[in-house]
Amino acid sequence: MNYRATLRTIGFILVFVAASMLLSVGVALIYGDGDALGIFAAAAVTTLTGLAFIWFNRKHRDLDIREGFAVVTFGWLSISLAGMLPFLFTGAIPSITNAFFESASGFTTTGASILTEIEGLPHGVLFWRSFTHWIGGMGIIVFSIAILPFLGVGGMQMFKAESPGPTADKLTPRIRGTAEILWVVYVILTAAEIGLLMLGGMDWFDSACHAFGTMATGGFSTKNASIGHYQSAYFDWVITLFMFIAGVNFSLHYYAMRGQIKRYWQSVEFRFFLGVMVIASLIITGFRLLDGLPFTLALREAAFQTVSIGTTTGYATADFELWHYFPQILLVALMLMGGMAGSTGGGMKAVRVMILFKQARIELHRLIHPNTIYKIRMGRKVLSANIVQNVLAFFLLYALLFATGTFALALLGVDHMTSMIGTIACLSNIGPGLGEVGPAENYAHMPVLAKWILSFLMIAGRLELYTVLVLLTKTYWER
Amino acid sequence: MNYRATLRTIGFILVFVAASMLLSVGVALIYGDGDALGIFAAAAVTTLTGLAFIWFNRKHRDLDIREGFAVVTFGWLSISLAGMLPFLFTGAIPSITNAFFESASGFTTTGASILTEIEGLPHGVLFWRSFTHWIGGMGIIVFSIAILPFLGVGGMQMFKAESPGPTADKLTPRIRGTAEILWVVYVILTAAEIGLLMLGGMDWFDSACHAFGTMATGGFSTKNASIGHYQSAYFDWVITLFMFIAGVNFSLHYYAMRGQIKRYWQSVEFRFFLGVMVIASLIITGFRLLDGLPFTLALREAAFQTVSIGTTTGYATADFELWHYFPQILLVALMLMGGMAGSTGGGMKAVRVMILFKQARIELHRLIHPNTIYKIRMGRKVLSANIVQNVLAFFLLYALLFATGTFALALLGVDHMTSMIGTIACLSNIGPGLGEVGPAENYAHMPVLAKWILSFLMIAGRLELYTVLVLLTKTYWER
Repeated sequence: MNYRATLRTIGFILVFVAASMLLSVGVALIYGDGDALGIFAAAAVTTLTGLAFIWFNRKHRDLDIREGFAVVTFGWLSISLAGMLPFLFTGAIPSITNAFFESASGFTTTGASILTEIEGLPHGVLFWRSFTHWIGGMGIIVFSIAILPFLGVGGMQMFKAESPGPTADKLTPRIRGTAEILWVVYVILTAAEIGLLMLGGMDWFDSACHAFGTMATGGFSTKNASIGHYQSAYFDWVITLFMFIAGVNFSLHYYAMRGQIKRYWQSVEFRFFLGVMVIASLIITGFRLLDGLPFTLALREAAFQTVSIGTTTGYATADFELWHYFPQILLVALMLMGGMAGSTGGGMKAVRVMILFKQARIELHRLIHPNTIYKIRMGRKVLSANIVQNVLAFFLLYALLFATGTFALALLGVDHMTSMIGTIACLSNIGPGLGEVGPAENYAHMPVLAKWILSFLMIAGRLELYTVLVLLTKTYWER
Repeated sequence: MNYRATLRTIGFILVFVAASMLLSVGVALIYGDGDALGIFAAAAVTTLTGLAFIWFNRKHRDLDIREGFAVVTFGWLSISLAGMLPFLFTGAIPSITNAFFESASGFTTTGASILTEIEGLPHGVLFWRSFTHWIGGMGIIVFSIAILPFLGVGGMQMFKAESPGPTADKLTPRIRGTAEILWVVYVILTAAEIGLLMLGGMDWFDSACHAFGTMATGGFSTKNASIGHYQSAYFDWVITLFMFIAGVNFSLHYYAMRGQIKRYWQSVEFRFFLGVMVIASLIITGFRLLDGLPFTLALREAAFQTVSIGTTTGYATADFELWHYFPQILLVALMLMGGMAGSTGGGMKAVRVMILFKQARIELHRLIHPNTIYKIRMGRKVLSANIVQNVLAFFLLYALLFATGTFALALLGVDHMTSMIGTIACLSNIGPGLGEVGPAENYAHMPVLAKWILSFLMIAGRLELYTVLVLLTKTYWER
């Protein structure tokens, strides 16, 4: 393990994050809420730390797979630590625990919040809060499409098998090239959403913050009542559309922008994900009709909440805890699935859920014909046994982390429902759950230790479990 | 598929069950509660049905693996249908739904009840209710140790790999021989418990009923307050001991009775199961001490509830819903695990949980050393890749059935907690859960359809999922 090369790389990441804090300083200066100095100080501390990391390790450049895991995990941890400084230095969030939770929640694009009064915060801080989502989403696109295959973790093996996209070995031989192409797609889509929201009359600030939260499938809003604040069909549908877009593999968007729109439909995972979103929306619409809502409102509410939870965004226009139990359980199931591989969405990913279903069917058939060799197909491709085993193992690790999180929270005195659903909501990077962390509540009242545990789960979930858990094994640290 | 040979075999099973109803007629005559005629009528109907099945298919004797699945699944279904007749004909449980639920709960050794007032029931009916447990437990021992390997379902492959016991191919070449040997063990242990309970002053009737419920890991009691009725340290500890015994592989008991007591300790699964029970009991004792209980009472309560839930029995001496959240979540985790393979306990089985943990560790190590070949060991034996895959698939199917059950119950308007834990409590054959089906409540208030769904889950869980689910595939029914 080359510690110094790892630190050097994290140094570069910190400098990049510090630079992005300056944007928030600019916003703070425009609105003059008095938070500019605090954010600037945070940027300064972060820059100096980053530069120190780079300078003292300037001769150490050898990164291998082993360091890759450390760079990603400790990188996300480091930016979460740096990201809490603007909250602390401006006094917006005085507690270190709360500030770290909010920052980790931002960078992991979870959107779980400890803030109870959002609208009273200064603009620079609010902008920073939403911007952490956007940076996190950017990081995840690179991570899932460019870095994961390099680490051999399998997220992308699956993805490659399913829809050959602009992966490191295809479109360009270098991670940087892949990243740049996908970031352009990310920027274009974000700009498009900002434009559409402003067209509907939202001011530039709220439009930008909400677009950051949407494209990263984050969910931080600038309003206490989230998107429900606007009571607007236009905003609801625009954001529903863009949340869905953010839950789709960004390679497909890249091809679409190059004119190959049929690539969407060629992707088995896309058809599955779209189908689940549409069917779940229609089922929930039915339940809302039974509750007496008019059709257009029922459909709008159902689609928004379904896509928001299904892509692990977490924006809300309705308190689904007041609905029938079935839609609630359905939303919990969607939390577990999450978005497509290669999207900014969290959860287990649609493609893994597809593989799990196919594997379950095969196991039953194997009982009747034990000597037949079964293969799982995704579209025209046959998946290797390795990938299937990797998916089963992922499912197992997810279940173990879920159990561990639930146990830990219960030990701290959190009730079962909140322990279970809160763990899922953080592990799958959604934000709002059920119980004490439902859409009408937040994480403010959680015990201090619970907030740290949930922050860890957010990072582990965001980095596809493996990347973080591997650091907990003895083998990793052996020479 | 040879339907007629299947029906013929089920005919024999029905005649056996009918004969065992006569025992309850005897009890009814002794107590003279007026239920003898009803139970006798049930026995008559069951006998005639069974004889008809045998007679009309007397020339069809060819049973193969395919018919094996049908015999087991439809066999359990048929005895559950026959078993409800004594409840219906005596008027003890007038509703077909409730009578079927109670009967299926008995034969699957689940112990979930729809009865709110137990002590008022006639003795013959109560005896029958407990006796369904005992027959079910007998069936499960044969099923798991003698029939499963024949079906190639893997429950026993694992078991064979771990501790070679008196399996069909080892001790005696015939299923019947294995069954008879294990039944002797079962009868001896049941008799021992009855003796010890009577020594403590429990009358023969209650002793027998509670021993049936214990040895089958069932949980039906003759008292409204379950074992808590007696408020007796002696009864609590005797039943705790025998519940534990019932959760252990019966082959090990067989060897112990032949003087090879060290076989217990040689079994890796036994050491794991014992360890989990002891540690969980001590943890819960700690929480009860914090609640202010004196040590001996805390230990007794904790051990009883831990072993009762951990072996999937379901007897209660305390309402654990009033405890701290952590012990409650711990008990839910124990529900999922259940007893050892080859015991009468339900759940996923200790050996499967061990394999899952070992597999999870391996998957992390594989990230660092992707080219190393990892093998899972149980004691000195190395498990084949097939077994590991089978266990992963079992876990997956368990999760899918859990999700399906939860969805179905929520659809019927049952709250989330009860939907989730009720599904687990039935799928793992425990009985009491949390929420509306907690230890102080029961299943009486569940919607009618929910009771049928839960009955199905009890049978599926009891028969290791595969045996039932395979019947739902198209492949099974193809020529």
